[in-house]
Amino acid sequence: MKKILLIVMDGLGDRPNPELGGRTALEAAYRPSLNYLAAHGINGFMFPVKEGIRSGSDTSHLSILGYNTFSVYTGRGPFEAMGLGMDVMPGDIAFRANFAYVNDDGIVEDRRAGRISDSTEELCKAISVEIDGVQFTVKNGVEHRAALVMHGEGLSDRISDSDPHVIGRAPEMIKALDPEAGFTAEVLNKYLEMTRKVLNSHGYNRSRRNSGNLPANELLLRGAGKAPVLENFQQKYRLKAACVVGIPLISGICKLAGIEVVKYKGSTGTVKTDYSGKIAAALKALETRDFVLVNIKAPDIAGHDGNALLKRDVIQESDRAFSQIIPRLDGLVVAITGDHSTPCSIKEHSGDPVPIVVAGNAMRTDGITRFDETSAVSGTLRLKSTDLMDVLMSASDRSEKYGA
Amino acid sequence: MKKILLIVMDGLGDRPNPELGGRTALEAAYRPSLNYLAAHGINGFMFPVKEGIRSGSDTSHLSILGYNTFSVYTGRGPFEAMGLGMDVMPGDIAFRANFAYVNDDGIVEDRRAGRISDSTEELCKAISVEIDGVQFTVKNGVEHRAALVMHGEGLSDRISDSDPHVIGRAPEMIKALDPEAGFTAEVLNKYLEMTRKVLNSHGYNRSRRNSGNLPANELLLRGAGKAPVLENFQQKYRLKAACVVGIPLISGICKLAGIEVVKYKGSTGTVKTDYSGKIAAALKALETRDFVLVNIKAPDIAGHDGNALLKRDVIQESDRAFSQIIPRLDGLVVAITGDHSTPCSIKEHSGDPVPIVVAGNAMRTDGITRFDETSAVSGTLRLKSTDLMDVLMSASDRSEKYGA
Repeated sequence: MKKILLIVMDGLGDRPNPELGGRTALEAAYRPSLNYLAAHGINGFMFPVKEGIRSGSDTSHLSILGYNTFSVYTGRGPFEAMGLGMDVMPGDIAFRANFAYVNDDGIVEDRRAGRISDSTEELCKAISVEIDGVQFTVKNGVEHRAALVMHGEGLSDRISDSDPHVIGRAPEMIKALDPEAGFTAEVLNKYLEMTRKVLNSHGYNRSRRNSGNLPANELLLRGAGKAPVLENFQQKYRLKAACVVGIPLISGICKLAGIEVVKYKGSTGTVKTDYSGKIAAALKALETRDFVLVNIKAPDIAGHDGNALLKRDVIQESDRAFSQIIPRLDGLVVAITGDHSTPCSIKEHSGDPVPIVVAGNAMRTDGITRFDETSAVSGTLRLKSTDLMDVLMSASDRSEKYGA
Repeated sequence: MKKILLIVMDGLGDRPNPELGGRTALEAAYRPSLNYLAAHGINGFMFPVKEGIRSGSDTSHLSILGYNTFSVYTGRGPFEAMGLGMDVMPGDIAFRANFAYVNDDGIVEDRRAGRISDSTEELCKAISVEIDGVQFTVKNGVEHRAALVMHGEGLSDRISDSDPHVIGRAPEMIKALDPEAGFTAEVLNKYLEMTRKVLNSHGYNRSRRNSGNLPANELLLRGAGKAPVLENFQQKYRLKAACVVGIPLISGICKLAGIEVVKYKGSTGTVKTDYSGKIAAALKALETRDFVLVNIKAPDIAGHDGNALLKRDVIQESDRAFSQIIPRLDGLVVAITGDHSTPCSIKEHSGDPVPIVVAGNAMRTDGITRFDETSAVSGTLRLKSTDLMDVLMSASDRSEKYGA
């Protein structure tokens, strides 16, 4: 039985870039460690979730960890909240939220309260309260954005939005879409009534009015979702598992899955992250665990920026950090892949498959000696991400025999 | 329309072996027939059951024959029993069993009755009886192992084990886990009560006591399973079908599927089998049938032994036997693959995919000219075994058009 190191290079997949001579960022990167691993394992493509799905990091990581996203992913709310670093527990209801401006007649005049340039942290704290046994927690995001998490007994996500989604109308009353959602709708309407008073009289909004800005006097809610109860990953696979992850969205998913989140110095979840420190922390964590997941966010950031040279450079820096893995291959299965493609040419996630290598000593190889989108074509694997954990369990000689 | 010859080389897949210069057994074997077939068909990988599954021969053969193992495979019991050569009929309930030693206080002191070195055949016959219309048949396996098959009306596998799975406790009463399993539990408890009397007073156990061995005075039952009712293979595919198979586990599955089992001289299910005789028998059987399945057990045996040189040699002997197929390719589709990998380096089944070739005259080819794990990488197929029968039906121009 071997241990498993799974490294997800966020947004790794790319398309040809003119500024890199028609190569992908990965093809253009100097990557001796990745190429070494390619030569010492099997290669190919992984389709995030399944062929033709343009997945988010949340759905993709859920499926990489072996969960069926089509049954566990109920809505963006809980994952947006995790992405802001909020604690979300199984059964919690979460929303995406906007701070908006409602005029004296109760009509939404601006769904973004004129796009807010400073932090709404104070406002969020002022409307984080408990009502009827339900804890409401609001956390600010970028500009007018925020998230709301409801924690309590007997909550349902079968409720409508308060966001009218257009200007010129009043915020909607929250309605129960199922009989059992009655309490949730009721306590939410009570909560929103309360927030209006608090927001209208808050010093932050007095300052905004005084400086000629629209006050952020309404919290518009949309995209209710219930944080899924995930089967415990460690029990399901009988793996003592940890993750080394800089971004809250992914560590939130790991927490829901019962995977320990290992802190390490230098974690930023940006392109300035300490790549070597991250891999060192993962190898250290593996000493006392069977499975470690690493997420490297930088390639995705560079992809969203449309910066092919930066994407190439962060892959190179990652590769340098991966050199620590090579002398540690005995007793280890290393898988490196992406959670989706973020081609620099479109600055967004695409449904293109991502290259994958599953490497180790004394493993089967497939004649591939380079790790990139073109070399992957000649490799062994054409894998849906949902099957990845089975492949890793099998490659590490850990899976139970199915049959006799 | 062509006929179909499907040859399953049991445990064929391998990993690099140091004693073969880093090659797999197949790569190291002299295999002109296999290479000829590779050049005259399409090649690639088959994933037994699906990607990342470490399958047994039973689950794998079921899925190779087109059955969904996840719905038809209810437990090992019936397949263990078939593996011992017992007749198992659809609806029969079967268990894995241990002969154990229970002391005078009724406590299991040794779950293996001191590991038995001689045959328990006599004991098994003594406790093969009919009670309340249910026929109980016990057959001895290796050492303390045995299997029990119950044949009768209205039986259910929703019952608990009698095996306490630990020493220091009494055997458990069999409990019904479903209301409809009441009769099964009741008749089983009656049966076990009877066996205790028979076993305790049996001459075999008197001899064991006299020679200082623990008596085998309790039959511990576990892993109840119901032999599945399989859709008839010959009707499903409209194929007159037979198999040439040396091992009872696979011929048992073929019987359940309604596939005729052809006897031939020299069948041993071991590495000493008559390879040429087996292929000759298969080609003879094809004269009056549309489909013949052959299982060659030897590569799996060599893999479990960790004997890479032997595995190479039995593949070479198989290849020599396959030379009979080459002049018979007109009107024939030949598929050669494995049911799973049994790498010599781990001496157990692994989840590594197995190479596959589907060959014939006037078929599409894919430029592959060698049959092995590395050459397969560049081939056409990445197939789940469950899809194999569809591929063979289509390759033999037998499948019905799906649509207009």
